[in-house]
Amino acid sequence: MTRDQLTERILDIKREKRLTWQQIVEATGEMADVLIVGALLGQMRLPEALAAKSAAFLGLTKSEERMLTEVPMRGQNSPMPPTDPLLYRFYELLMVNGPAMKELIQEEFGDGIMSAIDFDMAIERQPDPKGDRVKISMSGKFLPYKYYGAGPGVPPNGAKNG
Amino acid sequence: MTRDQLTERILDIKREKRLTWQQIVEATGEMADVLIVGALLGQMRLPEALAAKSAAFLGLTKSEERMLTEVPMRGQNSPMPPTDPLLYRFYELLMVNGPAMKELIQEEFGDGIMSAIDFDMAIERQPDPKGDRVKISMSGKFLPYKYYGAGPGVPPNGAKNG
Amino acid sequence: MTRDQLTERILDIKREKRLTWQQIVEATGEMADVLIVGALLGQMRLPEALAAKSAAFLGLTKSEERMLTEVPMRGQNSPMPPTDPLLYRFYELLMVNGPAMKELIQEEFGDGIMSAIDFDMAIERQPDPKGDRVKISMSGKFLPYKYYGAGPGVPPNGAKNG
Amino acid sequence: MTRDQLTERILDIKREKRLTWQQIVEATGEMADVLIVGALLGQMRLPEALAAKSAAFLGLTKSEERMLTEVPMRGQNSPMPPTDPLLYRFYELLMVNGPAMKELIQEEFGDGIMSAIDFDMAIERQPDPKGDRVKISMSGKFLPYKYYGAGPGVPPNGAKNG
Amino acid sequence: MTRDQLTERILDIKREKRLTWQQIVEATGEMADVLIVGALLGQMRLPEALAAKSAAFLGLTKSEERMLTEVPMRGQNSPMPPTDPLLYRFYELLMVNGPAMKELIQEEFGDGIMSAIDFDMAIERQPDPKGDRVKISMSGKFLPYKYYGAGPGVPPNGAKNG
Amino acid sequence: MTRDQLTERILDIKREKRLTWQQIVEATGEMADVLIVGALLGQMRLPEALAAKSAAFLGLTKSEERMLTEVPMRGQNSPMPPTDPLLYRFYELLMVNGPAMKELIQEEFGDGIMSAIDFDMAIERQPDPKGDRVKISMSGKFLPYKYYGAGPGVPPNGAKNG
Amino acid sequence: MTRDQLTERILDIKREKRLTWQQIVEATGEMADVLIVGALLGQMRLPEALAAKSAAFLGLTKSEERMLTEVPMRGQNSPMPPTDPLLYRFYELLMVNGPAMKELIQEEFGDGIMSAIDFDMAIERQPDPKGDRVKISMSGKFLPYKYYGAGPGVPPNGAKNG
Amino acid sequence: MTRDQLTERILDIKREKRLTWQQIVEATGEMADVLIVGALLGQMRLPEALAAKSAAFLGLTKSEERMLTEVPMRGQNSPMPPTDPLLYRFYELLMVNGPAMKELIQEEFGDGIMSAIDFDMAIERQPDPKGDRVKISMSGKFLPYKYYGAGPGVPPNGAKNG
Amino acid sequence: MTRDQLTERILDIKREKRLTWQQIVEATGEMADVLIVGALLGQMRLPEALAAKSAAFLGLTKSEERMLTEVPMRGQNSPMPPTDPLLYRFYELLMVNGPAMKELIQEEFGDGIMSAIDFDMAIERQPDPKGDRVKISMSGKFLPYKYYGAGPGVPPNGAKNG
Amino acid sequence: MTRDQLTERILDIKREKRLTWQQIVEATGEMADVLIVGALLGQMRLPEALAAKSAAFLGLTKSEERMLTEVPMRGQNSPMPPTDPLLYRFYELLMVNGPAMKELIQEEFGDGIMSAIDFDMAIERQPDPKGDRVKISMSGKFLPYKYYGAGPGVPPNGAKNG
Repeated sequence: MTRDQLTERILDIKREKRLTWQQIVEATGEMADVLIVGALLGQMRLPEALAAKSAAFLGLTKSEERMLTEVPMRGQNSPMPPTDPLLYRFYELLMVNGPAMKELIQEEFGDGIMSAIDFDMAIERQPDPKGDRVKISMSGKFLPYKYYGAGPGVPPNGAKNG
Repeated sequence: MTRDQLTERILDIKREKRLTWQQIVEATGEMADVLIVGALLGQMRLPEALAAKSAAFLGLTKSEERMLTEVPMRGQNSPMPPTDPLLYRFYELLMVNGPAMKELIQEEFGDGIMSAIDFDMAIERQPDPKGDRVKISMSGKFLPYKYYGAGPGVPPNGAKNG
Repeated sequence: MTRDQLTERILDIKREKRLTWQQIVEATGEMADVLIVGALLGQMRLPEALAAKSAAFLGLTKSEERMLTEVPMRGQNSPMPPTDPLLYRFYELLMVNGPAMKELIQEEFGDGIMSAIDFDMAIERQPDPKGDRVKISMSGKFLPYKYYGAGPGVPPNGAKNG
Repeated sequence: MTRDQLTERILDIKREKRLTWQQIVEATGEMADVLIVGALLGQMRLPEALAAKSAAFLGLTKSEERMLTEVPMRGQNSPMPPTDPLLYRFYELLMVNGPAMKELIQEEFGDGIMSAIDFDMAIERQPDPKGDRVKISMSGKFLPYKYYGAGPGVPPNGAKNG
Repeated sequence: MTRDQLTERILDIKREKRLTWQQIVEATGEMADVLIVGALLGQMRLPEALAAKSAAFLGLTKSEERMLTEVPMRGQNSPMPPTDPLLYRFYELLMVNGPAMKELIQEEFGDGIMSAIDFDMAIERQPDPKGDRVKISMSGKFLPYKYYGAGPGVPPNGAKNG
Repeated sequence: MTRDQLTERILDIKREKRLTWQQIVEATGEMADVLIVGALLGQMRLPEALAAKSAAFLGLTKSEERMLTEVPMRGQNSPMPPTDPLLYRFYELLMVNGPAMKELIQEEFGDGIMSAIDFDMAIERQPDPKGDRVKISMSGKFLPYKYYGAGPGVPPNGAKNG
Repeated sequence: MTRDQLTERILDIKREKRLTWQQIVEATGEMADVLIVGALLGQMRLPEALAAKSAAFLGLTKSEERMLTEVPMRGQNSPMPPTDPLLYRFYELLMVNGPAMKELIQEEFGDGIMSAIDFDMAIERQPDPKGDRVKISMSGKFLPYKYYGAGPGVPPNGAKNG
Repeated sequence: MTRDQLTERILDIKREKRLTWQQIVEATGEMADVLIVGALLGQMRLPEALAAKSAAFLGLTKSEERMLTEVPMRGQNSPMPPTDPLLYRFYELLMVNGPAMKELIQEEFGDGIMSAIDFDMAIERQPDPKGDRVKISMSGKFLPYKYYGAGPGVPPNGAKNG
Repeated sequence: MTRDQLTERILDIKREKRLTWQQIVEATGEMADVLIVGALLGQMRLPEALAAKSAAFLGLTKSEERMLTEVPMRGQNSPMPPTDPLLYRFYELLMVNGPAMKELIQEEFGDGIMSAIDFDMAIERQPDPKGDRVKISMSGKFLPYKYYGAGPGVPPNGAKNG
Repeated sequence: MTRDQLTERILDIKREKRLTWQQIVEATGEMADVLIVGALLGQMRLPEALAAKSAAFLGLTKSEERMLTEVPMRGQNSPMPPTDPLLYRFYELLMVNGPAMKELIQEEFGDGIMSAIDFDMAIERQPDPKGDRVKISMSGKFLPYKYYGAGPGVPPNGAKNG
């Protein structure tokens, strides 16, 4: 059994039982929506306790439940550039705004990156009379480039408030 | 003169005059930071009034000022996948979380996309005792797929609250 | 069951029953042809009412009918550049005329794009003594780039009639 | 002198003299807008009479005028997939709607293609209270696949009205 | 059943019955060899009469016969650049001689292309004492670029004999 | 001086002196048109005698003349797939007809290839009341795969008339 | 049955019967090792007599035996650049030494290529006290570019000893 | 001035003055060798104090010195896969050993990654009678995937010692 | 049976029997962890003795055991660039630090490479109060480029201590 | 000065002075032809003594001479797949014969590779009445995969004569 086969099976169950992701997330337990749905789509792992509840709710086998707790080979179901319009828009935002984002983050924080691992994201509906909006809040720990071997007087990464 | 040559010249001026983006943004006028910096890096255009102020502050020629008001061929300075670590992390976030984002947005809003055109973004420092965080807030208008020719009883896009 | 398997099955049924797309479209109900055929080929979704009629006409199972109402991962059955000559011609038209289209649309509408979501298309035969022509009419809402944070005096997107 | 250098020079002149494409098109003479602008951007050629008028209006040299009448190596200034959002939307429309377009054109016309050479296109503003729309009308001669060597009773290309 | 599966089945039958393409072509009826073999390999369609004879000769089912009359998604079994040496040589000829071919065809015919749709090809053995040669004769209709909207005095495409 | 710079210079001279390829070919001497034009475009070499005459006619320096006799790094000015429509049609013909060409050549000649080195090509106008045609005649020596080490009874390459 | 399936089956038989390639080559008959093993791996064809012996030795069916005599679609099981280190080294040798090889072969032989069709290769162990070496001897017929249409005084290809 | 131009200039100075990297590193000050050399090659930034010393030693201008303190667009001078053999071996090691490294790191540390930002590396000569060896020591902080929103009983990332 | 199928089967057994890699490595015998796990994942071979023990522990068939001793086609399960974050970080480290690594290794050792074949690697946990670290120690034999044919006075590869 | 600029300059000198590679190699001194020519084309380095003689013969500056002794970034002037026919044939030979070469080398030598660093190559004319042949002799040290950590009874790499 591959992780792709498990994902396909979960989507079949969801269709057969006419479940929503919201119902599945609630039955799985407490964790960010995007992480639970990501795990069921083969991009994240579920902690053991959540995997057990999710498997029970969906009617998975013990072996399938255990596979949900394994770290998957991430990123393999996402053709890049994305062919799907919903996903492509995020790719485009990065392509167009990337240079400015790099300059603004570095001027504020110094040399480093926003972590994609110690990272949280929420997706919400933002009501708007001109048409509701998708609001996406991302928060990732800033990780400064470490200057190993640098003498004591060297500030960490050229940060403004270093 | 190409837009790339203008961008390079602006970066040279910024270095020579030891300016920060914050100073340049303030001198340019009122508009989202990411749009002003994006325009100076050749990814956006500046409205005429802002271009005039920015050019005056930086010491650009009339012709350079006018070029700043032209819509550029966007996205050409962003190799994809990004080779730069700061930018790559956003690419990775899309690759890994994309499948879940698609499912969650569609379950909430129905068939459609978040606009990358009617779109706003802010980047902030989020103080945190375990290490400050980069907070990125995105908000884009939801655009439902239009079902042209569909009869009157058909809801717009399969949305929950359609 | 994957969406590709459903598409293949629909094509098998169409062949076995010697149906035309026109017959299938009529049996499915009121909506643009390109949307109905697109859904049956796995690129669009069918509203519930239309999926029910289409499934009844083709003899699909309940599960297959429901899958027709799901938003597919779009664009995955279209190798780019297209290997098929009929499709390649459109790709070529974009490659050759793209620069002029960008200039003409922007001069007329200002900075922005034609929506690919709020978009309608019709394909017709245009009789011509020198050989009939394929007439394709596209109409997409113009979406101006939003200048968030811009002061009140700034016109929306540099449009001629802004 | 390369064609790219000529294109860049024309854009410099347009910026310096604060010309619009509409003014340039009118000064160049009678031909579809998209063809004239395409030629000035290095994707089409101008007939001699139009090249002369265009060159006079823009102030080009004899050699530059002559280059405008040469057939260019088309398509080389269009990175594919397009990085620019305005152009990408057309690429996406082809990727998403391509399979349906192929089926619908073939069912109506039989085996063949829409010509990209005997082809006309117009771009217009379509006023709409919900937001003006970009209307693009394309018309290309249908070219049936020729069945060379086929006996007399064989219809040209499986066309409906063959 | 996919078109690839049909192709594979035809190759199995050919191997089992020890048939040559020449025998199959003769049994299928009158049409250029390259078109008949192309159709059996999934790149062309067979007119109904020829599909019936071909299917009878090979022992195909009704459904398989009908699939032979469908226009295939062309070009999908040809990796490019070709990995096979016989096919690669044609690719190389285009790469090396392409620039000269473009100049010579345009000088003779004006701005336009050789049609790949109204196109005929024959492959023959050309006996030669220094080693027999493969002779390939191609003939495609010249299609001049149409200058839509051009005034009456403009020759069609800059042709020598326009 | 690179070969590309020489090619660009020759094109500048041709434009300035308003020469046609036919005039240049005649002044260069006796050899297939496609080879002479190919050499001037940097894809072939000219024999010394022809290089001398060509250089004299065009007004090239001794060093430029000598470069024309050097074997170039072939194929570097031909983006593949070709972006230019005239060249793309040949690419498409190979993609679509390649599988049939391979079968037909191998059934006639056995295992081997048509040489792209011992190869001749001519391009002609084929008058036709329905529209003149481009006629391309190719002839390449058939090169059978050599079965080194094979015993005496083994025919060269499975050829029909081996 | 595809050629890949046959290759996989031969590898299964080899594993089950614990055969070496040397044993298989000897049982197949007289021909260069690299050609026999290449055929069994789906890259070459076996002459009929050798296919019969090979099939008998391995226990293949008549249909499988016949497939071994068919010319395969070469090169499809070799991802390029090679991911396997043993194969990559040859790729690297070409990348690094290619420019020098081109110059040296052309200075000695004139304009042309080493044939990859009339080509022989042997792989041997070269004992060496500092570590045995892999010795690869290649020999391919030199094929001079033919200057079709060239006058009588033109030497074949600029060769030193032309 | 671009960063590439600065890198080229530094390499010219190093060649003219016959400097070694070791001399440059010592003159620049205290920091890991790989970081200092990386900065001078345009992949890292130098802290201000070190940039000043390095610039003085090399004879750079004030503007060049300041550019050394800017964060570069990383990774743009490294074609991937690397064409250079020394660099390719590391690429190959990752391709071949990657799957095992992923399993072993995850079994030891749980779900997460080794940081490429909080990362140190040293390169040393390891004397060996059979031939000296290159010893590379890497050390990167382990960053566990954060399970945002997970309840209190959930261990951080499935780590053995979580 | 393909090597991929064997890998998948081993992962299924590991999941069913709830084994860790550490248990499997210990049961397989003495050899570097990364080599044993690599072999079980289809990237390395196991010596016969170790394959026997591993197969007995996992419950593999004789044929599967024998396949473990075969040299695999390496590198085929590693998409590059890696889509998985854990693996991508190593790719990024090479892209960013590659230029400096090349300079430092060559200055110390002269012209040559670190072997990826005579190579050893160990992965360890490095406890650290600020967060444990992944320590990776690599050691590969330095292989100097051989200057074949060079006279006696030429040092091997420009090495410092040559 | 970049290495590419130096290569271009050497080719200009060679053309101006009408030198052959043979003359340059002889003037440079004793080393394999392919290495000397490779160095002058920017793919190898010259030992100091040879660089001095080569520079004197060609009339290079001191700085150019020194650059010839530097290790270049190898492989960057070789587009892959090669567009040039002479070079492509070697690429094709690897693609077609690669699988057999891997099997034959591994059966003879065990698990490992032929070194591309401790490697020698010679190119010769092999006179043949049916047409002279290019003979290429390669010899590279066999490098067995090292099984680090393996117990004493384990043979090095599964070699026949291990």
